Amino acid sequence: MNEIRDRVEEICRAGAAARREMAAASGQVRSQALVLMAKALRDGSAQILEENGIDLAAAQESGLSEAMCDRLRLTGERIESMAQALLHVAGLEDPIGSGSVTTRPNGLVIRRVRVPLGLVAMIYEARPNVTVDAAALCVRTGNAAVLRGGREAIHSNTVLTSLLQDALTKAGLPRTGVQLIPFTERESATALMEMRGYVDVLIPRGGKGLIRSVVEQARVPVIETGAGNCHVYVDEYADIEMALRIVENAKMQRPSVCNAAETLLCHSAVAETFLPAFRARTRGRLTLRGCERTRAILPDIESATELDYETEYNDYILAVRIVDSPEEAMAHIARYGTGHSEAIVTRSLEHAAAFQAGVDAAAVYVNASTRFTDGGEFGFGAEIGISTQKLHARGPMGLAALTTEKYLIEGNGQIR
Amino acid sequence: MNEIRDRVEEICRAGAAARREMAAASGQVRSQALVLMAKALRDGSAQILEENGIDLAAAQESGLSEAMCDRLRLTGERIESMAQALLHVAGLEDPIGSGSVTTRPNGLVIRRVRVPLGLVAMIYEARPNVTVDAAALCVRTGNAAVLRGGREAIHSNTVLTSLLQDALTKAGLPRTGVQLIPFTERESATALMEMRGYVDVLIPRGGKGLIRSVVEQARVPVIETGAGNCHVYVDEYADIEMALRIVENAKMQRPSVCNAAETLLCHSAVAETFLPAFRARTRGRLTLRGCERTRAILPDIESATELDYETEYNDYILAVRIVDSPEEAMAHIARYGTGHSEAIVTRSLEHAAAFQAGVDAAAVYVNASTRFTDGGEFGFGAEIGISTQKLHARGPMGLAALTTEKYLIEGNGQIR
Repeated sequence: MNEIRDRVEEICRAGAAARREMAAASGQVRSQALVLMAKALRDGSAQILEENGIDLAAAQESGLSEAMCDRLRLTGERIESMAQALLHVAGLEDPIGSGSVTTRPNGLVIRRVRVPLGLVAMIYEARPNVTVDAAALCVRTGNAAVLRGGREAIHSNTVLTSLLQDALTKAGLPRTGVQLIPFTERESATALMEMRGYVDVLIPRGGKGLIRSVVEQARVPVIETGAGNCHVYVDEYADIEMALRIVENAKMQRPSVCNAAETLLCHSAVAETFLPAFRARTRGRLTLRGCERTRAILPDIESATELDYETEYNDYILAVRIVDSPEEAMAHIARYGTGHSEAIVTRSLEHAAAFQAGVDAAAVYVNASTRFTDGGEFGFGAEIGISTQKLHARGPMGLAALTTEKYLIEGNGQIR
Repeated sequence: MNEIRDRVEEICRAGAAARREMAAASGQVRSQALVLMAKALRDGSAQILEENGIDLAAAQESGLSEAMCDRLRLTGERIESMAQALLHVAGLEDPIGSGSVTTRPNGLVIRRVRVPLGLVAMIYEARPNVTVDAAALCVRTGNAAVLRGGREAIHSNTVLTSLLQDALTKAGLPRTGVQLIPFTERESATALMEMRGYVDVLIPRGGKGLIRSVVEQARVPVIETGAGNCHVYVDEYADIEMALRIVENAKMQRPSVCNAAETLLCHSAVAETFLPAFRARTRGRLTLRGCERTRAILPDIESATELDYETEYNDYILAVRIVDSPEEAMAHIARYGTGHSEAIVTRSLEHAAAFQAGVDAAAVYVNASTRFTDGGEFGFGAEIGISTQKLHARGPMGLAALTTEKYLIEGNGQIR
């Protein structure tokens, strides 16, 4: 354990030392590094597939589910799409160095400029593409990166990182600009969370358990992402056809993701029309769990408990509760929501405005599916994750979330 | 202790409940509330002086230093300047509601708007004017505030808060928009730090001990302020006359504040000219503690130890170290600095640029005193504190630091 900790510290120290060189590189060099990284992946694809095969064999032997094995699996096509992602990020607008300038009455010139955060650490799970993604976002924004992936993908991550590092050195950047922690024991993650002074921000990417443990244990700054207990509220003035489409989409288009809906709140005035129609539309594909009033209309569904309202199912299950007003819907959301994405379906301008003003969440929708909360859908080009915190970044995070500001002041001898 | 905790939770719950009403108020109403708060202080000045007298008598009885008593003391003039500060903040530009809008190809209209953080908590020490200041900044930005001041000022803070609350209700805002925690035991601060779900951000204002204990113990989001181990580096190409003025000012104009310099780094090529001149200029007013090379030039000063380089003296003491290059100065700053304010005095464009790029701090000065890192000096109108963290806000924080963003999305039935 001490050996792991020492090695993690050594890696973080090297990463921290690489910060200045990474930050000093021009936007052109950082962009070119990503182009070289894409080439390295294409050229190294045989090697990548071989190492990924070792991970896959181990995963199958250990009885990992087919869904998990699929997340882990790389193919020629998937390697190509990782390379494409690198090229895409290489072409995005560079946030670094932009800013503003003021001259004060005493002659001081104050420039406020966007600069890299420094050393960005990420802890994530099985998908090896996160290694490439994270490296791309960090290098593009002039940050150094320390990556700690999951046990299942260690061979894949190791070869990917080594190829990316070769490309970094070809671009004239330090090899330590992107480093992988070569351990997957829990201690290596815990050690990384404690690297105050080296790690400028730690971003966990993965399931709720991972994120919660990082948020609770970390002693370095963290950006919390991903927890999404999202609601759709079908108002008494809803267009019922639209509401049916939106609720179905928000819940069922991809239930495993954080912007999928988990609870339907339905106004009592439309419940007798909406709920049977929704039940008929999704029967056999979706399990409903309802409050007592819902069960009076749909007697064959299960009861929803307090626990249901608190749960992010990430599955084909939807809690249903009847409410008597937008206020009651908002009170439910204030109590159980995670501040991610919330939607109202209504034709009432007044109710729409009250909902958008009153719901405290990163994204508040009127007449659209919660599934749109996503960097790509918002037009950001790249997404680091979806922040559910209020400080620093909120909602889908683009490249700017990996930056901070700095004041550069020039004088000619000013004193106070 | 449980009683205190329960009462703190009750206050925070009430504060959290007031968030929506505070946020819903127009900029005009929030501004008008501050005007009424100023009037309330002027009208209540006799009452304020009476309660402040009780605090002062207790402070003198308990043997509080004269400097501390002075911080605590209110006078007619000081009450008037609190009222003026309220009116000043009332007139500042409102950050709330500003933002941008995009329409996506699928017709979704995405508005990104600045909104209040929600419930802002502050923990601070003896100065009663912080109560008024904090309330002003929070109300102006549509936040609810929970304030926990120091034991010494409890009577003053209680009467001030009650007057401010009267003004809030006159403005049509909830009395719970600004609340004071009526306890000054340590448990009340600890309880406040644990109010996850109620407190959106906690800002400690005060000495290092207070700030460190908040940063280490808090389970709610914190903005770290104030730690300033600042350096002035006198380069080999410095204008010596300018350097003398700047180092003296940075250290001595007001040594107790966070942007005062604590260590002088002097290039060896100018040390034999600069150091004796600086010593002569400040003799009897400033204690120097030097490295061995410094002591070879100024043999009558004390030795500087590792601890000196780590210390924020906040006093008329300055550590001095001779270095042989800007790189060595930057390495010293990287090791001992707190990321607050750092300065180089030089006529070399190259050294200036290298220093500004290479030093990782909120404010990096060329040929000016570190003492300018301040919301007022930067032209921000109001200052909540000086952030030494990189996430959310860095350097002097204006009103915008008390806000977050929210995405408001309007559709007409869009699904993915």
